[in-house]
Amino acid sequence: MTMAPPASLTETSLSPDDFTAAFRHHPAGVAVITADAGRGPVMLTATSVSSVSAEPALLMFSLSAHSSSTPTIRRAETVVVHLLGAGQLALAQLGATSGINRFADTSLWSTLPSGDVYFPGARAWIRGRVLTSMDAGGSAIVLVEAIEASPGESADEQVPLVYHNRAWHELGDHSQIA
Amino acid sequence: MTMAPPASLTETSLSPDDFTAAFRHHPAGVAVITADAGRGPVMLTATSVSSVSAEPALLMFSLSAHSSSTPTIRRAETVVVHLLGAGQLALAQLGATSGINRFADTSLWSTLPSGDVYFPGARAWIRGRVLTSMDAGGSAIVLVEAIEASPGESADEQVPLVYHNRAWHELGDHSQIA
Repeated sequence: MTMAPPASLTETSLSPDDFTAAFRHHPAGVAVITADAGRGPVMLTATSVSSVSAEPALLMFSLSAHSSSTPTIRRAETVVVHLLGAGQLALAQLGATSGINRFADTSLWSTLPSGDVYFPGARAWIRGRVLTSMDAGGSAIVLVEAIEASPGESADEQVPLVYHNRAWHELGDHSQIA
Repeated sequence: MTMAPPASLTETSLSPDDFTAAFRHHPAGVAVITADAGRGPVMLTATSVSSVSAEPALLMFSLSAHSSSTPTIRRAETVVVHLLGAGQLALAQLGATSGINRFADTSLWSTLPSGDVYFPGARAWIRGRVLTSMDAGGSAIVLVEAIEASPGESADEQVPLVYHNRAWHELGDHSQIA
């Protein structure tokens, strides 16, 4: 190990392009989030959903300042987070397309007993209460306490969907290395 | 769309097992986080790292209440977040193994001009300042402002590493579906 002398930040400071490039190649699972703050449902595709704690059951995700659905999700009391398999690529693409009515195909969605709009075709879904919505440079980090869930099929039937470098991938025996 | 009558929460309420099962099948990119709060470096493997915003350059991750490295990372002023490729599976496994000295192999790590310990073999790394560490049921959500980054090799040389259902996968032409 060698201790180098301190470098000036001018040499090493970060460009937004470098930051974006680093994360473009960071793969992620794919989720669709639905919410309704009283003025009709919204839906978006998110690659930032992550479990925080199992007991208590908490999850988090971030929302871009540029997404039209962000204000509604931040104001909503409850959300439904759908974790997608490769068979639901069309749903992922629907939630990632701007300027359309994402609820136009009424065969895709339904309503839970709680009143929350959801997509029953998702591999798994979790309905939860928005505990906190923290501002982060115009974007938001949302912390959700899970209330109920449909955990999905057994492991053998899962074909997970992964987003990476603007493309969609599925996992399987072909991709496993350890 | 059919409105069903409200169900009792007894029927639909969430078990920790169902919550864990839903996320076990949610794939994730793999990162290694290093930090030093003044008493020597710590290192752990995280599957919760996600970009929050490019301008300002912000990222987030969560830390388990059960990880021995969590208190150090929460107290640290700066962290280095390493985004791993499939070639760094051994590094991911090192950071996920408890009860060992993760810095025993001094050929694996070095020190940045800032003094932060890092693993130069990672596909990409981002050094940042801890802005907030929010408690979440004993776990923590950490928000980091990126200061400098090594964004890694070009897209053609990337073989991303994915964690899914307690196994490790790599992406490539074989896994791409769209």
